[in-house]
Amino acid sequence: MKAAQVIRPKTPLEIKDLPNPLPNDKQVLVRVHSSGVCHSDIHLWEGGYEGAKGQIMSVEDRGVKFPLTMGHEIAGVIEDIGSEVTEFRKGQKVLVYPWIGDGVCPACQIGEENLCDHPKSLGVFQNGGYADKVLVPHEKYLIDIADLEFDSVCSLACSGLTAFTAIKNADTSPKQTLVITGIGGLGLMAVQIARALLNPRIIAVDIDDKRLERAKNLGADYIVNSKNGDAAKQVKDLTGGLGADAVVDFVNGPKTVAPGIDMLRKRGRLVLIGLFGGSIELNLPLVPLKAMTILGSYTGKLADLADLVALAKRGIIKPIVTRKYSLDQANEALQELKAGKIIGRAILNP
Amino acid sequence: MKAAQVIRPKTPLEIKDLPNPLPNDKQVLVRVHSSGVCHSDIHLWEGGYEGAKGQIMSVEDRGVKFPLTMGHEIAGVIEDIGSEVTEFRKGQKVLVYPWIGDGVCPACQIGEENLCDHPKSLGVFQNGGYADKVLVPHEKYLIDIADLEFDSVCSLACSGLTAFTAIKNADTSPKQTLVITGIGGLGLMAVQIARALLNPRIIAVDIDDKRLERAKNLGADYIVNSKNGDAAKQVKDLTGGLGADAVVDFVNGPKTVAPGIDMLRKRGRLVLIGLFGGSIELNLPLVPLKAMTILGSYTGKLADLADLVALAKRGIIKPIVTRKYSLDQANEALQELKAGKIIGRAILNP
Amino acid sequence: MKAAQVIRPKTPLEIKDLPNPLPNDKQVLVRVHSSGVCHSDIHLWEGGYEGAKGQIMSVEDRGVKFPLTMGHEIAGVIEDIGSEVTEFRKGQKVLVYPWIGDGVCPACQIGEENLCDHPKSLGVFQNGGYADKVLVPHEKYLIDIADLEFDSVCSLACSGLTAFTAIKNADTSPKQTLVITGIGGLGLMAVQIARALLNPRIIAVDIDDKRLERAKNLGADYIVNSKNGDAAKQVKDLTGGLGADAVVDFVNGPKTVAPGIDMLRKRGRLVLIGLFGGSIELNLPLVPLKAMTILGSYTGKLADLADLVALAKRGIIKPIVTRKYSLDQANEALQELKAGKIIGRAILNP
Amino acid sequence: MKAAQVIRPKTPLEIKDLPNPLPNDKQVLVRVHSSGVCHSDIHLWEGGYEGAKGQIMSVEDRGVKFPLTMGHEIAGVIEDIGSEVTEFRKGQKVLVYPWIGDGVCPACQIGEENLCDHPKSLGVFQNGGYADKVLVPHEKYLIDIADLEFDSVCSLACSGLTAFTAIKNADTSPKQTLVITGIGGLGLMAVQIARALLNPRIIAVDIDDKRLERAKNLGADYIVNSKNGDAAKQVKDLTGGLGADAVVDFVNGPKTVAPGIDMLRKRGRLVLIGLFGGSIELNLPLVPLKAMTILGSYTGKLADLADLVALAKRGIIKPIVTRKYSLDQANEALQELKAGKIIGRAILNP
Repeated sequence: MKAAQVIRPKTPLEIKDLPNPLPNDKQVLVRVHSSGVCHSDIHLWEGGYEGAKGQIMSVEDRGVKFPLTMGHEIAGVIEDIGSEVTEFRKGQKVLVYPWIGDGVCPACQIGEENLCDHPKSLGVFQNGGYADKVLVPHEKYLIDIADLEFDSVCSLACSGLTAFTAIKNADTSPKQTLVITGIGGLGLMAVQIARALLNPRIIAVDIDDKRLERAKNLGADYIVNSKNGDAAKQVKDLTGGLGADAVVDFVNGPKTVAPGIDMLRKRGRLVLIGLFGGSIELNLPLVPLKAMTILGSYTGKLADLADLVALAKRGIIKPIVTRKYSLDQANEALQELKAGKIIGRAILNP
Repeated sequence: MKAAQVIRPKTPLEIKDLPNPLPNDKQVLVRVHSSGVCHSDIHLWEGGYEGAKGQIMSVEDRGVKFPLTMGHEIAGVIEDIGSEVTEFRKGQKVLVYPWIGDGVCPACQIGEENLCDHPKSLGVFQNGGYADKVLVPHEKYLIDIADLEFDSVCSLACSGLTAFTAIKNADTSPKQTLVITGIGGLGLMAVQIARALLNPRIIAVDIDDKRLERAKNLGADYIVNSKNGDAAKQVKDLTGGLGADAVVDFVNGPKTVAPGIDMLRKRGRLVLIGLFGGSIELNLPLVPLKAMTILGSYTGKLADLADLVALAKRGIIKPIVTRKYSLDQANEALQELKAGKIIGRAILNP
Repeated sequence: MKAAQVIRPKTPLEIKDLPNPLPNDKQVLVRVHSSGVCHSDIHLWEGGYEGAKGQIMSVEDRGVKFPLTMGHEIAGVIEDIGSEVTEFRKGQKVLVYPWIGDGVCPACQIGEENLCDHPKSLGVFQNGGYADKVLVPHEKYLIDIADLEFDSVCSLACSGLTAFTAIKNADTSPKQTLVITGIGGLGLMAVQIARALLNPRIIAVDIDDKRLERAKNLGADYIVNSKNGDAAKQVKDLTGGLGADAVVDFVNGPKTVAPGIDMLRKRGRLVLIGLFGGSIELNLPLVPLKAMTILGSYTGKLADLADLVALAKRGIIKPIVTRKYSLDQANEALQELKAGKIIGRAILNP
Repeated sequence: MKAAQVIRPKTPLEIKDLPNPLPNDKQVLVRVHSSGVCHSDIHLWEGGYEGAKGQIMSVEDRGVKFPLTMGHEIAGVIEDIGSEVTEFRKGQKVLVYPWIGDGVCPACQIGEENLCDHPKSLGVFQNGGYADKVLVPHEKYLIDIADLEFDSVCSLACSGLTAFTAIKNADTSPKQTLVITGIGGLGLMAVQIARALLNPRIIAVDIDDKRLERAKNLGADYIVNSKNGDAAKQVKDLTGGLGADAVVDFVNGPKTVAPGIDMLRKRGRLVLIGLFGGSIELNLPLVPLKAMTILGSYTGKLADLADLVALAKRGIIKPIVTRKYSLDQANEALQELKAGKIIGRAILNP
């Protein structure tokens, strides 16, 4: 099999020939048709995230080992199955749930493997989908996609699922106001999911009018361009001075989180997702006085991915694909994503 | 009637003679037997809280008006009732729920009047219990205390209820570890409530060995004196390196919140309650990467106070009274509380 | 003012001239524009429900007193306000929340007045909307309707709210299957609400093809006519033999509940709403073996009505009006409703 | 290895010599020290449950196959581990979670394997603990018991866990009243768990004064002997006529469920656990009018067993062992249990 691997951080990926894995027991071998290229792959490739005071938090300190085949948004066809696989068969079209845990920690016990104490995620802590084949450790991590397209469905495993979980964490009701900040691929998916599941009043916030227009077409009730002055003030004006009941921030940098706190209504929830990096000064007494909640949302659980795929199958949410690359073009795809040239999703077709 | 009033911030309270109120409709007039003196009264008296960068957040900006009769922990005997009161009668011994809202905002609609958009709390936004009589605007804010003692029960309305809500917000299970930071009156109550309701493994953290010893007697499994080196490290050592599932911080200052975040396990919850003041630098990518939740907890709702009084009636939790003062000694009580001379609770007996 | 009153059960309503009420304090006088005629009004009018073994459960035993002005679905214009009303003004168009409680019981403490221990609902336990004016005991029971039409919005207060609460109680996720049984006014509303909030796979069940067709147009994925053989079998066939994750039954008679239990998947939820009457034999060991939940759903709470009106304001759900009557025609409206001649909602315009 | 097997229903168990299993991959071989004898084993042994109208629901129809080694309450020492086991080592003392699912159904996805669509529970659908050795299919099903005693800890896996889940499903608060009906081993455990976790007002109901006295010693506030007249009336008298907020019924027969419904307060929850058998006539309109919930509770999930063992380790709950038998005495143990001679728990020591 062929894989595009990061040999060490900050150097170009190399195409490697690796031995073909054989699936045992409950394992499944998937021939990769589509593998999404995700912003978090750039952090892996660069070796770290920027934390407080510009300090870099190394991914190796978090347990990542190189060489690594990145790629956690994987859709393809089952090529071979282990002897104890009962629910899937060769030739079936599937999406892979990549946020695999150790199976024994408290998070895994309740099916939140994405938050495992010792994660083993595909494409992060073990080899993933920048390859023509991937070995999935248990059939339970597969979801049948029926006749959905590989290219559009693959990004549900991370981009879509992250948006789904973030919206669930926002937990707003129809009479409440939800702000969605950062209208890239995740933000656009989040607008659709918020419409499909909670139906609050939605305000989309970004610095790009085109993206905002797209958010409006997908269901946002109001749009706010934060270049046109203080976003917090604009949101307060739209909410009778009270503020938003929840803010979902797909950027999670100082320039969005500080106004995010300002625009929160009493009892409001600020959901932080992005890994842009940086820090803010948090005013401590305000947290109890406003009874606010700040919570981090990281990918999502298998049961939620099954729900999300169900929505896609009924056409209720539509993932957006922007550009396709061959496996050989993996470096190019990462470069263009980093340069901000891709709205929606870049896909490798190995 | 007689009341000890703050005429303006930072000046001594004055004893005033005020006209006797007459209860109408659903209103109830309570003769005050015991009125707790709370740390937050000091903030009111001083006119503000310290926020980020030493800036003072004025209580008048939050809607407080002077002169004000402070006092929101009120227990006494019903002296008179309005014509439409049906559930209570003259002579009945009651505790007053002081966290009254406007009755129409979304928080009030679900009985979270303590988080009302336009609060009218007794002793904060309208006259309270530093007085021999208090007019309660509706019988629904009263809870029968049977034969509990006024002096010990009154602090349930704020100190006890705040601890109750904080522990509910910590939301730990028996196999999880809960850290309780700041072992004053609230911390000691929190240890008892955590034992009575969730029964997690409890680690009490403070800088005073005597208080910690008391926490252990009330049910803490482990105690950590943060003067003996890094509290976060000590907590991690007690949890196999994983950290605490929840931290409830009754101080909420930079010296407790920063290690509080450090000692959190992945998926952990940090509940901030105190109004000590100050700020921390919040490392943004850590919030999603650790899937942490930081939430503010402010007093509690009426339904929870009813639960708390039920626990006290069965002797399961025991409030702690330290010193009693007459109404004329209100200034003295506030001074001694501010000077840190009171562990447990100071009470006015008007 | 004029009111159509039930003087005693089973006799025609009489039009009475009553003194004009004056609103005090927080009270509001509403000039009734539209007042829905509800199935439960027929039970009130007839004096009881049919329980097990054909026994009648008398409404007077439940606390209803005659003469009574029925009518709990009320929309109109504020004609006068009490001296302490602050959030509403004369001339404002409002919907009235009728499920008023005593304000002091545990249900009322958390805003579930519809489930009060001692209910005082408008049109049931005190005079309601079959009248040209109605006195609302507190401004908190009003919801601004902006420019929604009185005739369509009034039924949200009972028919719509009941459907909303039932769907919330069904608590299904997108990958799950929800059966909605009984496609009258409530069932059609429930299909819309399920689409707007949970987006499960929906199967509508009824005995009338026309109604089923309408359910499909409003968003049902599948329709099952229970006249075409065993409904439970049909639902199992549509769910790979596993059964439905939830069944919401707006009939709640023996002919729907027995198959409702049969068609439930393990862990399934059966939500019973209708007051058709009768009983079933419940197989006791099946309840734990299938880990099933059977729960009754009765109207809904104020906070949920606010959410429902928010959905209506954005055009996401649309109540259905079928026929309008004058106040003088109240008896006729009830007769036609009883005779099953009305699909959707009958409205009085006093 | 040696096992006491049911060769076919209603015939005595036979002691068989079986080949020693070898653990592969994540599998673990446990040498059984203690194996609880459970009431449900009697149903298995007899081949069925009694449903409505005396009809027998066959266990073979539910997927049970004979010959079968029963026994789902297993504690012992790890004798051997598979090559991929990382969290456990030979010689470690463990409790086995027996409610194993297929790993892929929606219940399994969220860690509710006990409610799996296609269960594979040890001692029910595959061989269990009436044997000197048992092969556990994955290390994740093991819980370290530290220095707890095998004989007392083993019953936590079913009897204790079922009580734990039932109490969680009752979901009462301290001011509420919880009725626990059926004070056998499960009922006594339930009283302890209710005290440790929810602390409601507890009323124990049984027909045996000795058992009731024991319930009182373990924490019940009131006891009701249903032989002394109508239990529902007695419970209403203890609750000011309102009824209980929740009833947990470990018998689940017509004689307990009918009064159980009668004694429920509006909004009450009736949790059915026992497999006594039979049926009741359920009055349908009462379900919504009282907004009642009837829910079945079946064993419990792995994460909850971990919580329960944590409580036992801290001495907060204490399982009760009554009599011990050798493996050869398995038939005798079952006979005595069936004859009602055992209060608490019978244990096999193979």
